[in-house]
Amino acid sequence: MRNACAVLIAGLLATVATPISAETPNRAELVSSVKSNHATNLKRLQDWIALPTIAAEKRGTPQGAEHMRQLLLDAGFQQAKLVPTAGVPGVFATLDAGAPTTLGIYFMYDVKQYDPAEWSSPPLEGRLVDRPEGKAIMGRGAVNQKGPENAFLSALHAFKATGRKLPVNIVLVAEGEEEIASPNFHQIIATPEVRAAMEKAVGVFIPGAGQESTGATSIDLGAKGAVEIQLISSGENWGRGPTKDIHSSLHAIVDSPAWRLVKALDTLVKEDGHTPAVEGWFDNVKPLTARQKELIAEGVKKSNEAEIKSQLGVKQWIDNEDFLTASYRLAQQPTINIQGLVGGYTGPGGKTVLPGRAEAKLDLRLVPNMTKDEMVSKLKAHLAKRGFSDIIVNVSGGYGPTETDENTLLVKSQINTLKQAGIEYSLNPRTAGSWPGVVFTGPPLKKPAVGFGIGTGGAAHAPNEWYLIDSKDPKKIGGLDEATMFYVDYLYELAETAKASR
Amino acid sequence: MRNACAVLIAGLLATVATPISAETPNRAELVSSVKSNHATNLKRLQDWIALPTIAAEKRGTPQGAEHMRQLLLDAGFQQAKLVPTAGVPGVFATLDAGAPTTLGIYFMYDVKQYDPAEWSSPPLEGRLVDRPEGKAIMGRGAVNQKGPENAFLSALHAFKATGRKLPVNIVLVAEGEEEIASPNFHQIIATPEVRAAMEKAVGVFIPGAGQESTGATSIDLGAKGAVEIQLISSGENWGRGPTKDIHSSLHAIVDSPAWRLVKALDTLVKEDGHTPAVEGWFDNVKPLTARQKELIAEGVKKSNEAEIKSQLGVKQWIDNEDFLTASYRLAQQPTINIQGLVGGYTGPGGKTVLPGRAEAKLDLRLVPNMTKDEMVSKLKAHLAKRGFSDIIVNVSGGYGPTETDENTLLVKSQINTLKQAGIEYSLNPRTAGSWPGVVFTGPPLKKPAVGFGIGTGGAAHAPNEWYLIDSKDPKKIGGLDEATMFYVDYLYELAETAKASR
Repeated sequence: MRNACAVLIAGLLATVATPISAETPNRAELVSSVKSNHATNLKRLQDWIALPTIAAEKRGTPQGAEHMRQLLLDAGFQQAKLVPTAGVPGVFATLDAGAPTTLGIYFMYDVKQYDPAEWSSPPLEGRLVDRPEGKAIMGRGAVNQKGPENAFLSALHAFKATGRKLPVNIVLVAEGEEEIASPNFHQIIATPEVRAAMEKAVGVFIPGAGQESTGATSIDLGAKGAVEIQLISSGENWGRGPTKDIHSSLHAIVDSPAWRLVKALDTLVKEDGHTPAVEGWFDNVKPLTARQKELIAEGVKKSNEAEIKSQLGVKQWIDNEDFLTASYRLAQQPTINIQGLVGGYTGPGGKTVLPGRAEAKLDLRLVPNMTKDEMVSKLKAHLAKRGFSDIIVNVSGGYGPTETDENTLLVKSQINTLKQAGIEYSLNPRTAGSWPGVVFTGPPLKKPAVGFGIGTGGAAHAPNEWYLIDSKDPKKIGGLDEATMFYVDYLYELAETAKASR
Repeated sequence: MRNACAVLIAGLLATVATPISAETPNRAELVSSVKSNHATNLKRLQDWIALPTIAAEKRGTPQGAEHMRQLLLDAGFQQAKLVPTAGVPGVFATLDAGAPTTLGIYFMYDVKQYDPAEWSSPPLEGRLVDRPEGKAIMGRGAVNQKGPENAFLSALHAFKATGRKLPVNIVLVAEGEEEIASPNFHQIIATPEVRAAMEKAVGVFIPGAGQESTGATSIDLGAKGAVEIQLISSGENWGRGPTKDIHSSLHAIVDSPAWRLVKALDTLVKEDGHTPAVEGWFDNVKPLTARQKELIAEGVKKSNEAEIKSQLGVKQWIDNEDFLTASYRLAQQPTINIQGLVGGYTGPGGKTVLPGRAEAKLDLRLVPNMTKDEMVSKLKAHLAKRGFSDIIVNVSGGYGPTETDENTLLVKSQINTLKQAGIEYSLNPRTAGSWPGVVFTGPPLKKPAVGFGIGTGGAAHAPNEWYLIDSKDPKKIGGLDEATMFYVDYLYELAETAKASR
C-alpha cells in the first residue's frame, strides 16, 4: 500500500533537476546494455503484471511466489527459495558477490484488487499508453510495486549482461500479503536462515517510483503503521436478533445487528467524526521532533496545495486547517478509518430485510510508539466496557509504525547517489501510507529501512494504475532505463560510502 | 412484500378444519372444469414466473405489464389496458357481467430480486418439487404473488370454460412496483377512468395463500405502512471529505462521509438499538383498540412460539418480552430498520480506501395514523436540526398504513365463504408486513381492502420460494385446484351477501 501515499507526498515537493554526474566505472557500457535490453526488461514487467497475486481473494498465491523466485534466479541470485508462512508464502534470496557490504531489499509481489470494468485497458494486459510524461505501462501493480521492483531487477540484469560482479551482496525478502497488511511477514524474518542473512545487511529498502512532475523524489524515512480490522455484528454471536436475513417488518420485535454495529461504531470516534475516542488511544503517541517538523515544513513550502486538493476531490482539510498544520497532522495523527460498510442488502434500491449480520471494515494508522497489539487490545477493552463484547474484532493484518534515522549509512549512501545524479530530493520523516518497515526497524533486526528510487507512476489501488516506461524528458523524470541505471549507480555508491565509513 | 408476514402470522393461528358445504350452483361442473384445466392453469403460472418484473433492477418492466394485460384478457376481462405512471406502468381491466355488485381486485405483477446461486432449482424455471404438504412449484414470485393471483385467474377461466356469467362484475388494478414500495401506485388510481370504475366496487382484495399447516387462514384487515429510504452521505453533497474513494491514510486530514453517516444514523434510534428517536415520531400513533388486542390474543393462544423463533433463527424477542406482548408490539410498534449498509469497499478482506460515499438503506414501518409524508418530513427536520442537512434523504417508495373494518360487506362475504367451506380463520387486525391497501382504504376511495385466500406457500423474498400445487390433504390445505374453487365459491357468496344486505 506504499505508493498511494506518494500521490500526496509527491505534491509536497517541488524542485529543479541538475545534470547527472555519475561515478559508476565504465558507466557507458552499462547504459548501453540497459538500452539494448529495454524490450526484455519491459516484457518481464508485462509478464509479471499478467500474473496477479491477490491475497484478499486468495488468487495466484502459490504461482506468484514461484514466479517471484524464478525472477530472482534469472536476475542473478544464487539461491532463491519459498518461505512458508501461516498464509501466502514469502520468498528469500541471496546474491553473494564476495563484497564486504550487504544490502537488504524488500519486495512485495502481491497487488491490490481491481475491477476490470473501471479500467480503460485490461488490468492484466500491461498495455503501453501515452501520457503527458511519456509512454507508460498500464496495469494492476504497475507502480505498486512491480514496476519499481522490475527496475531493480533490470539493474541486476545489467550487471549479469556485462559480466560484472556486484559491488555489494544482496539479501532479498519478498512477501505476497503486503496488500492485506502483512499479517505473516514477521514469520518470514523469524526464519533462522532469513534472519541470519538479514543481520548482515546495512539496511533495507523497498524500490519506489516517487518522482513528481518537477523530477524531485524523496527518501521515505518512516511510515505510519497500519492495522486492518473487520468489526462484525451478528445475531449468531450476539445471541439476539436473527441469525440470517429475515423480513424487515420483524424489526418491531427482533433486535437488529446492523443498529448494534452503528451504536458500537459511534463510540469509536468523537462527535467531530474523526478523532479516535477509544480509551487510551493516545497514551503512547510520541510528538513529532523539531527536525521532523522542519522537514515537513520544507516540503510544504514548495508544494501546490490547490493541485493536491483538486487531485483528491477535497475542498478543505479537517477542521479547515491550513496546509502546514494539515501536513503535520498527516504525519502525526493516528486514525480509525471506515474503509467499508457492508450489511444486508447492498444492491440497487431496497430489499426489505432485517440483516442477520453487518460489518465495518476499519483500518487503523499508528504513529510511534503505538503498536498493533496495544491498539487491538485497547479497542477490544473499549467495546467490552460499553457492553459490545459480542462484536467480533477480526484483525486480518497489520503492523506498527516504522522510523529510520537520516544519519545512517543506508540513508547517507542514498543521499549521495541522489546528489551525484543531481536529483532534488526530500527526506520524508513519515508517510501517512504504510509499509511493514517495522519488521526491519523494530526488534530483533533494528535495521534502517526506507523507500527509495526514481521514476514515476500513479493510481496505486485505483483503476488505470500506471508506471512510466519511456520518459519524454528522461533527464527530469526517469523512465524504466533511467530507474534501472539509478539502482546500478546506487549499488556502486553504497559500496563507496560503506568503504569510506570503515 | 405481503406474504413474508404470513410466515410469522401463520404461526399465530391453529385450528381444525370442518367439512366443505358449498352453495355454488352446479358446483360439480365447475370442479370438473377446474380439474381438467389443471395442467393449463399450472402452465400459465410457470410461464408467468419465467418472465420476472423487478422494478429495483429495471428488469422486465414493459414486458411484464403487457403479459399481465394479456393474462387478464385471456381470463375474460372485456378490456385491459396499460396505465402509464412516472415509473413502471400499471394495468387496469374490467369484466362487466351486468351484475348489481362490483368487486375490486388488486394484483402485483412484479417480484423481489433473487440470486440464482442461492436456489436449489433455477428461480425462473417453476420446477415442481416434493414437499411435506405435497407437490409445489418453486420459483421467484411463486407465492408472492403470482401463485395466488393465478388461482384467481384460474377461477375466472372456470367460468369461461363452463360458459357461465360471473355473479359479480370485476374491476382490477395491477402494479409492477409493489416490491419497491409502490411509489407510483396512487397515480394509477388517480387516473379518472380507473377511479370511476373503482368507485363502484364494494371493496378490494389481494389474493393470498396464507393457510398454515393446520389449514387455518386469515383475513388481513390491516397492514403497516412502509417507506423505503436511502440515506446517503457523500463528499460531493457535504462539501467536505473526498468526492471519490481515496487512499485511507488521508483520513488523518480528510473528513469521512462514512463516519458522518454513522453519526447521523446513531441519532435515529435510542441506545436500545430499536426505538425510533426521531423527534415527533410517535405524535400520531393510535393505540390498538380493545378489539384489535382481543384478535391478536386469540391468535397467540393457539400459536407455537418456539417453532416461529426457530424458523426465524431468533432466540428472544426485543426486551425479552413474552409472546403476547411481542405480538402486540409487532402490530403496534413503528420501526426504522436498516435493511442495508454499503460504503467503500465491500468485498472480502480490506482495501485501504477512505470512501467518498456511504449509504444506509432504511425501511420505515408505519402504524395508524402515521403518514408517509409526515414521517419523511420529520426525518428530514430531525437530521437538519442536528446539522446533517447534507445527508441525502432519497425516498424511493412507500405508503401509509391501511385498516379495514370487519363489519363491512366485503369482509362479511369473505367470512361467510370461509364458514361455508368449513375453513378455520382468524381476523388479523394488522400485519407487520405491508401492502399498499391505503391507496384503497384512504381518501379519495375509502373502500374496504384486505388480503384473502386459501392455499399455502413460503420463502417469499427468500431463496426457494414455493407455492403448493397438489396438496396431499386437499381438504385441509388447498392446492391450486382448491384455491381456484375457493375463489369461484367466493364470487357467488359475495353476490349473495350483497343481495341480502340490500
